[in-house]
This record gives sequence, C-alpha cells and structure tokens, in this order.
Amino acid sequence: HSRLPGYATHQLGVAGAALDVDTGKVLVVQDKNKTTNAWKFPGGLSDPGEDIGNTAVREVFEETGIKSEFKSLLSVRQQHRHPGAFGISDMYIICRLQPSSFNISFCQQECLRCEWMDLEELAKTKDTTPITSSVAKLLLYGYREGFDKIDIAMREFPAVYTGLFYKLYHRELPDTYKNMTEVS
Amino acid sequence: HSRLPGYATHQLGVAGAALDVDTGKVLVVQDKNKTTNAWKFPGGLSDPGEDIGNTAVREVFEETGIKSEFKSLLSVRQQHRHPGAFGISDMYIICRLQPSSFNISFCQQECLRCEWMDLEELAKTKDTTPITSSVAKLLLYGYREGFDKIDIAMREFPAVYTGLFYKLYHRELPDTYKNMTEVS
Repeated sequence: HSRLPGYATHQLGVAGAALDVDTGKVLVVQDKNKTTNAWKFPGGLSDPGEDIGNTAVREVFEETGIKSEFKSLLSVRQQHRHPGAFGISDMYIICRLQPSSFNISFCQQECLRCEWMDLEELAKTKDTTPITSSVAKLLLYGYREGFDKIDIAMREFPAVYTGLFYKLYHRELPDTYKNMTEVS
Repeated sequence: HSRLPGYATHQLGVAGAALDVDTGKVLVVQDKNKTTNAWKFPGGLSDPGEDIGNTAVREVFEETGIKSEFKSLLSVRQQHRHPGAFGISDMYIICRLQPSSFNISFCQQECLRCEWMDLEELAKTKDTTPITSSVAKLLLYGYREGFDKIDIAMREFPAVYTGLFYKLYHRELPDTYKNMTEVS
C-alpha cells in the first residue's frame, strides 16, 4: 500500500481534551467567529509532516497558553464536504492530553472564551457540539472507570523505507500477545 | 475547526481484516510487486468522498472476491514521507470485517497469493509486516477474549452544515453515559 501512487484527499484537524485529573476539570474554548456559543476542545489543522499528538499539544498551547503532554487518541471523525463535488474530506481526531500548566492565557484572535470546565458539566451541557458532547461523555467514563476503557494507545515503529519512525494507534495489547512469536 | 480554510495533506489507505469467526481464519494476501513475500490484509487507497468502512469492503472484494461487512476500526497509522520535503503524509487504517462469502477469486494483477490463514499463525509468523503482525495479535486477543476489548466502534451523526451524515469512531460508550443530559 504505502508505495502506491496517490494524491492527498484529506485534511487533518486535531483537538486536545486536556483533563486535570486532580480537579476533574477540562480545558474548553468558544470560537470567536461562530454564531452559537458552543464549548469545544481547542484544536486546529495539522501542519505538513506533523504527528497527531504534536498538533494537539501545539494547538492547545497556541490557543490557550496551556502546556500539555499527549496521552492517547479518543476519537476519529471522517467527514466529506461538497456533496457530489468530491472535494477535500476532513479527518478530525481528538486526543487525550495531560496538562502540565494551568494558567490560561488565551488567543484573543481565535477565542471568545476559554476556561477549565467541570467535565461532568461539559458532558451534560447543550451548549456544545455533538462531537464534543460525545467525547466529553467518553472522557468522563474513562475518568471514573479507568482511562484503559477509552484510550487508543500509541506505539512507535521504525519505517523500513524512510529510516523514520511512524506511529501506530490501537487498543492496548497485553504483553502475552505482544511477545508471541513462532517457534523456530 | 471544520470551516477553517485548508488544503489536503494526507492520503488515506484502508485495509480490511476479514476474520471468519467460525474457523478462526483471516483473509490475507501477498502483493505481486514486492520483493519480500509478506502476508498482509487486503486494502488500498480511499476514493474521494468514500467512507472508511466502504473502502475496506470494496478493496477486499476487488482484491480477493470476498464479500464482507464493516464491524469496527482496529488501528490507525500516520506516516510522513520525504523527510524535510513536507510531502504528502499517509493515514492507514485497518478495519475489522465480518466476511459473508468464502470462495477466494483473487486479482492476478495485484496479488501473488491469497488465502484464509489461521489467525494464530499470522500473529506468530515472521513473513509479514510489523503492522500486520501487531494487528493480527490484537485481533487474536479480541477473538479469544471479546471484540469489545479491541474495537473502535462507529456512530453516525447528522452534519449541521451539509445535511449529510458523518461518522465518529471511538470506544463503545455505556448507555448510562450516552444518555446523560443536563436537568432543565
């Protein structure tokens, strides 16, 4: 597959759900140029060559001033635009982040508001988007019953052709399975 | 996010892991034009405007003649090529499929071999790629201990702006969380 010719069909957007596990509060923003005041996770478009987790961490910092570390993928959305016209499609990924700073200094150009909101409040509010609401409920489930229930974990592998590393995201695999090999 | 201007940076490849749960065998192919005889899951590039699951089902049928139904996402890989040149990046997604036909009639242009292989054999063999091996181990774990351990489930939502539906993939969420709403 990886050596097939092809052209880019998707843009990639990444958002970060930065949850402070000590307080149960999560970082949310309201975009400045939208008609409805919907709370959502900060995020934006991936730069060329940028890894998913790095986009989430960078966008969260640029929009809100909060520093964070990538933990896992939570959700993937694929959306097609321009029905019938076969335009560019969107992939939109939300990551779980661990914040390491807490003083908000948000971007006045992009955001109308930015705050640490109680995760249960975000999971229940109508002032949000359907995706944010779903992922807030998912994150609340993980926060209460263990992040292993919701996390799509990251592993790194060396790429044969480029000498680079690439990242593979899937559910955590027990070591007994990871270490399976044929008897030679 | 979804209304930001942007351009496509990623091509999307999708493969299908079609597991016959009655026999424990999974559908694998060897590509014709590769130097090493590595078993892998059939797949290929997504057509513009095509949903992930539809790409998997179509590619599996075109390569192998096997009909199947989409069940879940198993893994997502992001890979950048052309280090420093900021070229197109790859997203490569492997889906879990439920086969509904079993007589292989494989594409002679694309495939050297195609067979139903015992999943445990695929999980243990060295004649495969690192990603196929990882996902085979993951699928074996799910086959033995419940697919709910490994599945990234699909939900469909109406899109506000286009009138289309879009698909969101995340871990299964218990109904008690799905139905949470604020007391009004």
